[in-house]
Amino acid sequence: MTVHLERDLQQLKRSLLETSTLAEQAIRKATAALAHQDLELARSVVDGDAEIDRREIEVEEEALQILAIHQPVAIDLRFIAACLKINNDVERIADLAAKVAKRVLDLGGQVAEFPEIPRELLELGDLVINLLRRSLDAFSRGDVELAARVRLDDDQIDGLHRDVFFMLREQMKRDPELVEPASSLLSVSSSLERIADHVTNIAEDVIYMVGGAIVRHPGHGVRGADTTAS
Amino acid sequence: MTVHLERDLQQLKRSLLETSTLAEQAIRKATAALAHQDLELARSVVDGDAEIDRREIEVEEEALQILAIHQPVAIDLRFIAACLKINNDVERIADLAAKVAKRVLDLGGQVAEFPEIPRELLELGDLVINLLRRSLDAFSRGDVELAARVRLDDDQIDGLHRDVFFMLREQMKRDPELVEPASSLLSVSSSLERIADHVTNIAEDVIYMVGGAIVRHPGHGVRGADTTAS
Repeated sequence: MTVHLERDLQQLKRSLLETSTLAEQAIRKATAALAHQDLELARSVVDGDAEIDRREIEVEEEALQILAIHQPVAIDLRFIAACLKINNDVERIADLAAKVAKRVLDLGGQVAEFPEIPRELLELGDLVINLLRRSLDAFSRGDVELAARVRLDDDQIDGLHRDVFFMLREQMKRDPELVEPASSLLSVSSSLERIADHVTNIAEDVIYMVGGAIVRHPGHGVRGADTTAS
Repeated sequence: MTVHLERDLQQLKRSLLETSTLAEQAIRKATAALAHQDLELARSVVDGDAEIDRREIEVEEEALQILAIHQPVAIDLRFIAACLKINNDVERIADLAAKVAKRVLDLGGQVAEFPEIPRELLELGDLVINLLRRSLDAFSRGDVELAARVRLDDDQIDGLHRDVFFMLREQMKRDPELVEPASSLLSVSSSLERIADHVTNIAEDVIYMVGGAIVRHPGHGVRGADTTAS
């Protein structure tokens, strides 16, 4: 690997981690806005999404430039392919954080009294943030074992989301007054679950990036992806 | 461009279009299952998702192989980058089609009588299928104008989804018996809306692939992406 390529790959990694940190902050703020009924904080998340969109494009351009200029192969090529995909997931995570923030704004406008937030929903938010943090650490350090643990923890998320879903559905059945706030909270819960799916994708891309194994789609086994030039 | 590269790019395009056609069939079947209360058809969509997952991995491997072997630049590089991203979107579309099919199965089990499906929801399904078909045509022919029209039509989808959302929420408020089926139908509606988002991404990638302009994130204007080797 040339010194220039090494330098450019490090810069790409830094750019992607910076964007990821913004996305992580967005989801932290959005769930804090939900927990503390902080509409101003929610608004700042919605407003901040444009900056993350802009950076996503920059990271993609940076990755394509490196492909075009250095024409890397083998592990460097896998690293760039992984960056392109993780970049995509990070942007979607930020979009979903903005969506959560919008539902918090809806809740603020819908009812005289901000509804009680189910404990399980706040727990779900904390878990998702924790998973995202760990998947980004796994990317930053190229830590396959950590990435593998993140993948496994996604099941816990699905279980919590299901609990929240059934709980809110029962509330709606009991009291028609609760249909509006409960459907906003349902939307928050599914956005959090979708964020966790993107986080799982990131973990899978880290595993692929380091080991060359494609581990998506559980049940299909682990297959080696030989992308070295022949 | 060498003859080998040309041949491999054509093969990549064919593989991606084949997978896309399977995803399109999945969403067609899932919405038909909803309209005709056909639980067996719904089950076949859920079962068919594994095959699309498998093909997504194959297309990705094919694309990375071409990058590694031919080290293409400029428009060929953009074409491959677009294929990688479209491939990702196609796989998610198939996942969401399976999710719609699962909700149809839920509806079949939840209530003695299959609930009446709002006309707007069926319309939404038809529109999404039509948009997907057109975005794949735009990809197949490299038709930027068609891709641009697909992008604009996404607004119509968001409007329909909003109508369905409010309609179902009112049903739930009126009759607690309807909370269960209506929340399944809500989930169908948001899956369709998410599919439309992926379709919009595909259209944007076609525009980028042909013209080199990144048109994501409306409001940020159109920027040229120079990915040619300097």
